[in-house]
Amino acid sequence: MRGDDGVEVLRVAGIERAGPGDLTFLASAKYAPHLAGTRASAVVVPPDVETPLPSLVSKNPYLFYARAAQVLHPPAHPAPGAHPTAQVHPSTSLGDDVHVGAFAVVGPRVRIGARTTIHPHVVLYEDVVIGEDCLLHSGVQIREGCRLGNRVVVQNGAVIGGDGFGFARADDGSYEKIPQVGIVVIEDDVEIGALTAVDRSSLHETRVGRGTKIDNLVQVGHSVTIGTHTVMAAQVGVAGSTHVGNNAMIGGQVGIAGHITVGDGVVATAQSGIPNSVENGEMISGYPAIENRKWLKASAVFPRLPEIARRLRQIEKKIEELLAKR
Amino acid sequence: MRGDDGVEVLRVAGIERAGPGDLTFLASAKYAPHLAGTRASAVVVPPDVETPLPSLVSKNPYLFYARAAQVLHPPAHPAPGAHPTAQVHPSTSLGDDVHVGAFAVVGPRVRIGARTTIHPHVVLYEDVVIGEDCLLHSGVQIREGCRLGNRVVVQNGAVIGGDGFGFARADDGSYEKIPQVGIVVIEDDVEIGALTAVDRSSLHETRVGRGTKIDNLVQVGHSVTIGTHTVMAAQVGVAGSTHVGNNAMIGGQVGIAGHITVGDGVVATAQSGIPNSVENGEMISGYPAIENRKWLKASAVFPRLPEIARRLRQIEKKIEELLAKR
Amino acid sequence: MRGDDGVEVLRVAGIERAGPGDLTFLASAKYAPHLAGTRASAVVVPPDVETPLPSLVSKNPYLFYARAAQVLHPPAHPAPGAHPTAQVHPSTSLGDDVHVGAFAVVGPRVRIGARTTIHPHVVLYEDVVIGEDCLLHSGVQIREGCRLGNRVVVQNGAVIGGDGFGFARADDGSYEKIPQVGIVVIEDDVEIGALTAVDRSSLHETRVGRGTKIDNLVQVGHSVTIGTHTVMAAQVGVAGSTHVGNNAMIGGQVGIAGHITVGDGVVATAQSGIPNSVENGEMISGYPAIENRKWLKASAVFPRLPEIARRLRQIEKKIEELLAKR
Repeated sequence: MRGDDGVEVLRVAGIERAGPGDLTFLASAKYAPHLAGTRASAVVVPPDVETPLPSLVSKNPYLFYARAAQVLHPPAHPAPGAHPTAQVHPSTSLGDDVHVGAFAVVGPRVRIGARTTIHPHVVLYEDVVIGEDCLLHSGVQIREGCRLGNRVVVQNGAVIGGDGFGFARADDGSYEKIPQVGIVVIEDDVEIGALTAVDRSSLHETRVGRGTKIDNLVQVGHSVTIGTHTVMAAQVGVAGSTHVGNNAMIGGQVGIAGHITVGDGVVATAQSGIPNSVENGEMISGYPAIENRKWLKASAVFPRLPEIARRLRQIEKKIEELLAKR
Repeated sequence: MRGDDGVEVLRVAGIERAGPGDLTFLASAKYAPHLAGTRASAVVVPPDVETPLPSLVSKNPYLFYARAAQVLHPPAHPAPGAHPTAQVHPSTSLGDDVHVGAFAVVGPRVRIGARTTIHPHVVLYEDVVIGEDCLLHSGVQIREGCRLGNRVVVQNGAVIGGDGFGFARADDGSYEKIPQVGIVVIEDDVEIGALTAVDRSSLHETRVGRGTKIDNLVQVGHSVTIGTHTVMAAQVGVAGSTHVGNNAMIGGQVGIAGHITVGDGVVATAQSGIPNSVENGEMISGYPAIENRKWLKASAVFPRLPEIARRLRQIEKKIEELLAKR
Repeated sequence: MRGDDGVEVLRVAGIERAGPGDLTFLASAKYAPHLAGTRASAVVVPPDVETPLPSLVSKNPYLFYARAAQVLHPPAHPAPGAHPTAQVHPSTSLGDDVHVGAFAVVGPRVRIGARTTIHPHVVLYEDVVIGEDCLLHSGVQIREGCRLGNRVVVQNGAVIGGDGFGFARADDGSYEKIPQVGIVVIEDDVEIGALTAVDRSSLHETRVGRGTKIDNLVQVGHSVTIGTHTVMAAQVGVAGSTHVGNNAMIGGQVGIAGHITVGDGVVATAQSGIPNSVENGEMISGYPAIENRKWLKASAVFPRLPEIARRLRQIEKKIEELLAKR
């Protein structure tokens, strides 16, 4: 802490719109010029930034800001208890201070851990298990037998445990449904985005590892396993039985084929199409995905393909002339 | 109006399936041969098309047809009032002739403008503001504090104001959630497609401009701003903090990176991947997106790459021979 | 049947995790080594696989397994009748043994065939027709007038019959909505994935043919028709008025342009972008999509583009030298 440590902050705001009572932050020294004009009451800064403003100094200002913002803007905690319109099966086990919102449906043998908030219009099929301190937003559907750890956040409209896409083809060309008898397991501290679908496994389990964050409209196929602390941006699709490792970063609209392994720490840039397994730590791009540096270079040449084809024809002509003149 | 102006039309129909009582239309003169066989009672035509049928002549037949169809097929207006099963918080302000459907949940301090229809199973969190003459279909979720203008249409299952995808990384590799304290503002005359997600801003607002039309399964990231009269086809993804201008046309499955500006009037063809800002009026394609004409030409050469590589080898060989013979 | 035909199996399991009471399967002889270690009570095998385990022999073990799994894991059939909280309009016609779950809304003049299960939180607008033995999971929305055949399965959160994306542009750049007055028809034995949107037609009908299987988060545009026994993986998008034939296989994230025909038996690999019509039986890939074999070969050369450009420059230089020396 530098400067006046008695200053009061009530909320967070961006550096340009902040006013009295606001805490803002500077992610790095390169944004320091913005500090001059801010009306914020206090600012989180990296150690190498000087400012007359009351400031909280952190080597990771963004992280510190995240924690301060969580204190200033805690998630709403509706009053404990089930709304009178909620349909909670008598066999359900509710922990202390659980809130169940209007019109929620909680099926037989469901267990919900302490302090979890179930918003209106959530449906939990039979035998679902939800940990402590979870937050399920309205419109979430969780299918039979799926299990969520502690502190899991599920945004509106997500579907966890829908049937995997499994069919066997008969000789007449028709498809016969393979019952999807497995479940989905979501570990602690995971966030699942709005309108994301995580399919139940055909046989055993689909698993999303601890601390992994998945954005909106993502498809996670049946029997997929995702490691810990991986992030997946919006509209990613992961086909069945694939494993994505720990600490991976998967960009928006990336597609990952089935039955492959994407290693730990892999970075796949937006819209990549990944047909084959990827080694730990690689950074990949393109469709089909290749090493990012190679892709950047090849993509830079791509628009010149017509010119390359034309020059090739000219060369061939000249060589024919040279050969003819012999 | 040409021909019998006493003809009665009751509904619209396509030119080939139309029968007595149907109004149909001809988008341009090139479809005129279809007129001979139609059994429609009347037709909207451009000025250069002659027909003995009773016809409405318009320089923009499709637009005229749209307006006629709106008259013949007005949206259903359920009886005013809240369904007895709806949970409407006592602090809610409802305009005249508002309909709230079965099992809808309307939170504290929500305001809904006159003549708006809220279908069953819509959830409006606290402090939501909805304008006049809006239509919210079943299964729509609107999160705390978000605001819709007048005449906004939201198709089924869309989520407005879900948390943006914002996390700060700690030294141990774990992610800390950044509270998303901003809102979403949807201006007048916008349409939002089914199962589309428009995320709330991390700090201030995500905004969709007047008259913009967004199709199904689209992702609009946090703090994105979209101008007026822009259209986005299905499954487009726009990453956080990007600005898309006015009158842009974004094709299906296009991906737009975060923190860039896509200018007014930009046309991005389907599946483009846009990594960098785009000037006003450009037409772009490809991944990474380049000028559409260049992309078309380069894409036409792409399948010939193996042949180009082979010819290159042949040339190199011939040159070696020429050099050797010296 | 080979071996002990008195063995009892209670459920299915994967070959590695199976234990006593489990039935497992071997899709082909190449997995035969796994048989040695399995603890399953019985196994479905192809004719060329020998095992001391009690085994069911089938030329199509996967199909046989699917049928056995359906017997061992029949879909839950909740008790017939409407839940007391369901809002079923008095004009609705319900077949024998129909189940309607909590908070479901069934609109005027809806007809539901015998033995169909409607899970909680399903909304059926007016005039919807559902066949016999259907299964609609929670959160499904079906709009006015749409029709489902028999044995149709709809996963959670899917939207059938949302408005197609149709607007006419006025001179001032604004868009006027074209009322979407058609419907959606889903034929017998179709499966629709979670959070998939099938738009109603602008004029007549959008149709999904018998036995076709559609995965999650797929967009089917207005007036699209899809043939029989076609499969579409997750996140596919089909733009308006396109026809996809019978027995086609469309990979994940494929985009198909509007107003084209994709023929019978077409295979489009994941992420393809299909701008033009495709002949029956073709296998295509890429963006824009071309013949799969050509695409594989050209894609293999693509990373070498920078090297090709460099070699081209070297050749040009050598030729200049050769010409100069004359």
